[in-house]
Amino acid sequence: MTASATFDPGPNAGFVGVKGGRSGLNTPALVLDVDALDRNIARMARFARTTGVNVRPHSKGSKSLAIVRRQIAAGAIGVCCTTIGEAEVMAAGGIANILITSPIVSPPMVARLLALNESSDGLIVVVDDVRNVDALAGAIGGNGKPLGVLVEVDVGQGRTGVVGDDNVVALIRRVVATPQLTYRGIQAYYGHLQHVPTVAERLKVTEPKITQLRQLLGRLRDEGLAPEICTGSGTGTFETDAAAGIFTEFQAGSYPFMDREYVEIERGDADDVGFEPALFVQATVVNASRPGFVVVNAGYKSFATEGGPPVVARPDLPGATYKLMGDEHGGVTFDPGKGQVALGQTIEFLTPHCDPTINLYDRYHCVRGDTLVDIWPVDGRGR
Amino acid sequence: MTASATFDPGPNAGFVGVKGGRSGLNTPALVLDVDALDRNIARMARFARTTGVNVRPHSKGSKSLAIVRRQIAAGAIGVCCTTIGEAEVMAAGGIANILITSPIVSPPMVARLLALNESSDGLIVVVDDVRNVDALAGAIGGNGKPLGVLVEVDVGQGRTGVVGDDNVVALIRRVVATPQLTYRGIQAYYGHLQHVPTVAERLKVTEPKITQLRQLLGRLRDEGLAPEICTGSGTGTFETDAAAGIFTEFQAGSYPFMDREYVEIERGDADDVGFEPALFVQATVVNASRPGFVVVNAGYKSFATEGGPPVVARPDLPGATYKLMGDEHGGVTFDPGKGQVALGQTIEFLTPHCDPTINLYDRYHCVRGDTLVDIWPVDGRGR
Repeated sequence: MTASATFDPGPNAGFVGVKGGRSGLNTPALVLDVDALDRNIARMARFARTTGVNVRPHSKGSKSLAIVRRQIAAGAIGVCCTTIGEAEVMAAGGIANILITSPIVSPPMVARLLALNESSDGLIVVVDDVRNVDALAGAIGGNGKPLGVLVEVDVGQGRTGVVGDDNVVALIRRVVATPQLTYRGIQAYYGHLQHVPTVAERLKVTEPKITQLRQLLGRLRDEGLAPEICTGSGTGTFETDAAAGIFTEFQAGSYPFMDREYVEIERGDADDVGFEPALFVQATVVNASRPGFVVVNAGYKSFATEGGPPVVARPDLPGATYKLMGDEHGGVTFDPGKGQVALGQTIEFLTPHCDPTINLYDRYHCVRGDTLVDIWPVDGRGR
Repeated sequence: MTASATFDPGPNAGFVGVKGGRSGLNTPALVLDVDALDRNIARMARFARTTGVNVRPHSKGSKSLAIVRRQIAAGAIGVCCTTIGEAEVMAAGGIANILITSPIVSPPMVARLLALNESSDGLIVVVDDVRNVDALAGAIGGNGKPLGVLVEVDVGQGRTGVVGDDNVVALIRRVVATPQLTYRGIQAYYGHLQHVPTVAERLKVTEPKITQLRQLLGRLRDEGLAPEICTGSGTGTFETDAAAGIFTEFQAGSYPFMDREYVEIERGDADDVGFEPALFVQATVVNASRPGFVVVNAGYKSFATEGGPPVVARPDLPGATYKLMGDEHGGVTFDPGKGQVALGQTIEFLTPHCDPTINLYDRYHCVRGDTLVDIWPVDGRGR
């Protein structure tokens, strides 16, 4: 709960404020370009104001109080978390209006949820099962503070969420009839459609989901169950989703960072000023004995591996590529006719999937240009 | 350095000593069967005594002082680390005779290495480049404590290590001629051959490496450069490697845990009493709305993903399989005619690749049978 109170800035603390300090950190190190971060946050805030859709950014990626505070200062209405541990960290940092986007079902974690509800303003959790609704009500009992809930609707991800409108309506009715719970609305997240490469394809695959939700919302209005909140969307689809007029708020969480996967997909009109990469991993060359190939000290423990390789972010090594070579090693292949890299030098990489990559680190090394300006904790890591 | 002094045992501390407490932890949780752990450690110790090969176990996987202390109590002669941060954690925990198995080359990390050398007994680091040898000597200067080094030999992994016997001999001569460094021997690690499925195939692919090393060792003897230490091998090949009589010590690090990858390969004669799985991840069922399929709260952030899926470790769900479904979710498919699993229940999984899986967690939940008996820090995580 008090992780940040005892935060150890680590072996690079002495480089803060040193001109050129960015380029020779103790590595592997997670590097955050705070100017790019702030521009990305401002861009999303402008988009939200323009479209009238709220932003309640997901923090399962950033896991950072400093970043969430910047998002809230820019207009975000709260924050999303996946786990009860992440929510505890956010609440302990003074963040209100937390939405937990995955059901909390087991007795010890329900107990933590209800304790958090007593101390936190505006807490909401999703539910997708009547057994969970009844268990929450039973645990709150006659004297507990009512808990805000959203009913999660499965829109094809096949993971959590209620399948079928009749079942959604039935579960909402159960929530409405449960005095320990406050019905706040619905959640519908199609995470599996966030990385469709072109805008046209994304519109095509999300259109049936929008239609499904529009029909559900119509029925809920007709039955007197109109939701105050309809939440969902992500960094891949929020631009096209906004036009549909279905969502009252967006949960996008990767836009502050723009990992390799999100940089590679085509952006929509909202991107007229350009979301830009802000997150990098810095590694050190530990072997430079072969022409056109060096080994760096960053492998499975420094990059998420499920979404393809990181991208070499050195303009002086055009076309260089990275391959995983074990827990703590990777290989960088480059054209020695176009650039050189020396033993002991550092190389930065645009990260693959940002959420599980950030989850490997305890600290953000915040940079402006070539200067390390601050070190922030990854507050929610491991929670 | 003092991570364990401020160790937070986390939300499951209240379950320690509670009968049946193992089965309903706050999840995802890393679970360690300490009896199986101790049997695996004892088995390796017996094998080492029988074969006369020392064990200096790698701690890049366990990252745990508690486990390394058990290994040393069973006869291990020290510990291997990959990073300077891991070595600092081990030394701060009172562990001597640390071998850092990857070159330390950049100025800030060299400075930490030399500081550690001043305070730690028997520290050794590998070198594979004359520029690194000279840089270490220059940094130690005229008054520093000499640093023990091994010259790393590339035996086909194509990562770190010197390629070619002439180059190995030349680098050893440079080390011997450098008063700031103490030549201790050589390292040769074929990590890429550790998971060859059958003993016969493993013998076949390691035989050329053994021949290469035997020739090198003969030449080093002839030239008066015979190494005190020849270190390498791993949990996959140590049994077959012992017969070759080449190695003076083994670096195996996964044998205390036996992850899915090492459980699946055929074992040699040393396994007559059976290395056994000791490491599991416990997750909670958060959706049980479909027949024969449940969703658990463990995904990319709870399992290493580069080495295939975890294995469902519930005998009452025969044939059940796991698939990744996102950062915090996975799906378990099972035959509902053969077993049932309820919303909120927990499921344990035999882990995929143990090193990067452990690296995702801050704590080992130590169990004996169905009782949680202790919680240990993953001391070196993130270092």
